[in-house]
Amino acid sequence: MNVLVIGANGQIGRIVVDKLKESEHEPIAMVRKEAQAEAFQNKDVKTVLGDLEKDFSHAFEGVDAVVFTAGSGAHTGADKTILIDQEGAMESIDLAEKHGVEHFVMVSGMGVENPRAVEGKMRPYLHAKHRADQYLEQSGVPYTILRPGRLTDDAGKGAVNFYEYQGDVEYGEVPREDVASVLMEIINTKAENKLYPLIGGDTPVTQIL
Amino acid sequence: MNVLVIGANGQIGRIVVDKLKESEHEPIAMVRKEAQAEAFQNKDVKTVLGDLEKDFSHAFEGVDAVVFTAGSGAHTGADKTILIDQEGAMESIDLAEKHGVEHFVMVSGMGVENPRAVEGKMRPYLHAKHRADQYLEQSGVPYTILRPGRLTDDAGKGAVNFYEYQGDVEYGEVPREDVASVLMEIINTKAENKLYPLIGGDTPVTQIL
Repeated sequence: MNVLVIGANGQIGRIVVDKLKESEHEPIAMVRKEAQAEAFQNKDVKTVLGDLEKDFSHAFEGVDAVVFTAGSGAHTGADKTILIDQEGAMESIDLAEKHGVEHFVMVSGMGVENPRAVEGKMRPYLHAKHRADQYLEQSGVPYTILRPGRLTDDAGKGAVNFYEYQGDVEYGEVPREDVASVLMEIINTKAENKLYPLIGGDTPVTQIL
Repeated sequence: MNVLVIGANGQIGRIVVDKLKESEHEPIAMVRKEAQAEAFQNKDVKTVLGDLEKDFSHAFEGVDAVVFTAGSGAHTGADKTILIDQEGAMESIDLAEKHGVEHFVMVSGMGVENPRAVEGKMRPYLHAKHRADQYLEQSGVPYTILRPGRLTDDAGKGAVNFYEYQGDVEYGEVPREDVASVLMEIINTKAENKLYPLIGGDTPVTQIL
């Protein structure tokens, strides 16, 4: 499959692209700037320039699956939360629908299920991610939503706590590398329109699905 | 009808409450602070304290119609755009549905139909208002969405340019007082799940519906 990775230059994005490149799939790394593209091109990875705040419809040509792992990051204002985390995601979902994408994998986050439980500056972010997730659920695009806990840079354990969301969530942390491994398992599976919380745990990643 | 005015202390809100008080309807002014409530109580207007960022479900008891004219204003950040203009509106729609409200009248704005056409700091606001409008359209709550052009403090003319939205919009400005008069006409009519742009014009307000 041709897998468009939106947010390829992010911390999870880069690991996912590397894993896709080693697999039977063909990653297409969507990045905003030419300078970001070079590192991927040096590894013989296809790239496409696309800015979530502009028209990036060209990026979807020939794409079979999408991994959305873009984020405005912790150092920008809530304007970018709307423009990137919410609207960039929703526009990606619209484009996926138009182009008949078979699997849209959304990297969401824990806490997104209940933004009103949170006070302070995280809340607008949780609202934005929540609306994007809802939009995907209602879009008709086959999807998987992954909601990892607090991300760490620890080495991956290759084992996690992964389960279908039933209204309750266990909080915890999870290495980005394990998130990327879980994303690979998801991409290798048919979309079942499900939502999965994810934290560190003991189930081998190869056995989660 | 008992008409809950959300954003009663705003510029349009105050005029609408006054007009409702002179009509056969009973306005309930929802305001955030006790100090804001006094001015309404002095005019014998019912008030309810409610904060869109908190739990304001109590405000919907016995309510037949809602006018949503709250806004985070030009002097707050995009975090409030999410919390008030988007999420405050969406939560109001959810509560209206729960309480069987017969008519939800949303004060939206021109340009909301195409946020991506706009650059700069208005764009996050337009996105937020757009998502709230979409949410109302899909909610099942009987609604009217009003999209006035640029608001002025000119005296009302009692005449406007008001038409059902068909994909094209004529830009222009309109006095807040005329917006409030149009809202009264809308409240006096059964909800028909329609969306109307509004600018100044020559059609007497009494003849628009």
